[in-house]
This record gives sequence, C-alpha cells and structure tokens, in this order.
Amino acid sequence: MRGEPLDAETIVSATEEVLRRHGPEKTTVLDVARLLGVSHGSVYRHFPSKAALREAVIRRWLDRVQEDLAAAVQDSELPPPDRLRGLLTTMFAVKRAKVGEDPELFATFRVLAAEHSTVSSAHVAFLLAQIRGIVVDGIAGGDFAAGEPEVIARAIFNATSRFHDPAHAAEWSSPEIEAESASVISLILDGIRAR
Amino acid sequence: MRGEPLDAETIVSATEEVLRRHGPEKTTVLDVARLLGVSHGSVYRHFPSKAALREAVIRRWLDRVQEDLAAAVQDSELPPPDRLRGLLTTMFAVKRAKVGEDPELFATFRVLAAEHSTVSSAHVAFLLAQIRGIVVDGIAGGDFAAGEPEVIARAIFNATSRFHDPAHAAEWSSPEIEAESASVISLILDGIRAR
Repeated sequence: MRGEPLDAETIVSATEEVLRRHGPEKTTVLDVARLLGVSHGSVYRHFPSKAALREAVIRRWLDRVQEDLAAAVQDSELPPPDRLRGLLTTMFAVKRAKVGEDPELFATFRVLAAEHSTVSSAHVAFLLAQIRGIVVDGIAGGDFAAGEPEVIARAIFNATSRFHDPAHAAEWSSPEIEAESASVISLILDGIRAR
Repeated sequence: MRGEPLDAETIVSATEEVLRRHGPEKTTVLDVARLLGVSHGSVYRHFPSKAALREAVIRRWLDRVQEDLAAAVQDSELPPPDRLRGLLTTMFAVKRAKVGEDPELFATFRVLAAEHSTVSSAHVAFLLAQIRGIVVDGIAGGDFAAGEPEVIARAIFNATSRFHDPAHAAEWSSPEIEAESASVISLILDGIRAR
C-alpha cells in the first residue's frame, strides 16, 4: 500500500498507463488499483465507474491534444485564409501523430467518440470554436464572403471529417492522404473566400 | 434436395436472405446450404469461401444502389452545378435509405468497406466517375473553374465522406444531418465555381 493520500489525478495517471498497456477493452478498475497498490474500493471513491475513469483519462489527453493544436496555430499575425489552412492542416497532423504515438489512448478516444460521450462532444465544440474564430475574423476583414459563422464553421468541420474524425484513423496511413487533405482544404478556402 | 441445377445467382440470392436474417457475423455457408436444401460442398463449388460469397452478395446489392443513384441523376438537361448538387444529395439519400431498409446488408457492406475489399473499391470508383463526369462538363461549359477533374472529384468525394461513408452511418439519424449535408454541398459548389 502507498503512503501518500490517493488523489484523482494520481488515479487518472495510473489509468492512462494501464490503458496504454492493455487498451480500452481489457483495462479494468482492478488493474488500476493493483498498479497503485490500493483496493479497488479506493479507486471507486473517486470515480463511480470504469466509464467515468476512462472519460477522465481521455479528457486530460484531449486537453493536451488541444494545447498542441493551440500552440501550433497561435500566430494570429497571418491573414485568416492562411490561419484557417494552418489550423485544418494541424488538426489533421496532430490527430495523425497521436494514432502513431498513442494507439491505445487513441482507440479509447475512438470508443468515446462513437458513444458521443460528453468528453468527445467537448472536443468537437473546442475545434468548432477554433474554426469559427478564424471565420469571424475573415468575414470582418473581407477575406471571406459574408455568412453565418456558426453554420460555416460546422460545414468546414464536416467537410474535413475524413481528416480528423477517429472513425477514419485506419485510412491515415495511406500515402495519398496528405495530398488529399490539402485538396479538400483548398476547396474549402475557395468556397468561403469573398468574391 | 432441390431438383433444378444450382447456379451462382441462386446461391447469391439465398445468401442475401440469410445475411438479412442473421447479419454478417452469424451467417455461415452451412446456413446458406440448408436454406437451399443442398450440401455445403455444392455451395463451395461456386464460391471458394464465405468471404467470396459475401462479396458476391454485396457486389449485386451495390449494383442496385448504383442503379438507384443513376436513375435519380440521369436528367442531364440541368446545368452542371445543379446536377452536382443533385448527385451529392442523392448519394446521401440513397445510402441513408439503405441503412434503414437493409440494416444487415448495410452492415455487411460496412465490413467490406473497412477491409477495402475490391467490391467496395469498385463502388468508390463508380461514385468518383459520376462526380468527375459532371466536373468535366462544368469546366468545359465554364460553370466551374479550370482544374484537374480527377483531383477535384476526389476532393469532393472526400469532403462529403461524412454523408456517404458507411463508417458514419450511426450519425445519419441526427435531426440536423440533412441541413449539415446541404451546407457542405453549398460550400463545395462555391469552391469549384468559376470566378
């Protein structure tokens, strides 16, 4: 048994480690308790179910994905079309890197996305807000045609599903995928620019 | 035992019926043989494996899907932008109808698509050819901006993945999905039209 008091953050870190080793299907609360040297009752005091624990891990993991993304696109000196191209290209690059680096956590994220969990919905809302922010700037500055930013952002998000939705992860190792993503992004930029 | 000689078409029809009842996971060659009142050896004389049989069923099923689609968009009197909107809208409507009418055959198609079987690749090639044909006409007539029809068709196909790829079928019952599809199609049409 461990000396320090058990906090939620420690449990989340241990669960992340177990998920990385065993994947979403085989990970149990007992594995997590065993790694921490505590009873499974101690884990349940912080997280009422395996599902809650899994969500907490993916919430933290997606926070890091979102930080990577925000860091890559924070250069707001660029004109909106370039920022939008950068954001969409980076959204894809970051997700694709995660499939390679963290296949088991990505698989867990994919399960939550398929279940439309609140964690994955919050991530979608984050991505939509990033896109919408650039669309608003682009319309205000005259680079993009006038329109409803919310609707335009959703259309851009949907049109790039193949390049960020975890349901398509198996296709991301195709040699043509980067060129295909670039073509779709160009099509979108042509679609929204002012005439 | 049946009187008539057993042909491939009869086996495919019987397999379709079994797949409709039991789904892709539980269907066996023995079920098909039992329905036909023949030995499973008789089935194997026409199809070397369960996978080959499943492919034959989905090939015929996709032929019907493609006929439905071709019938719906054959009115070539319309200008290319309207034809493209009609094709993309119908691609989605036909797929969505099939999920509802034929859930088990759709599930079988989804398995083949995930495995990148030749049957599903041929279906993708068919859809790409339909899109490309309209793009070629639109560029020739000056409705669409100049460009490489093959690349443009692929970008249009990829940008509408959420609305035709079977990996997204679970999302097609959303009440917003039709409006979202219409927004993406408008974005694409704005992206390709001549300036």
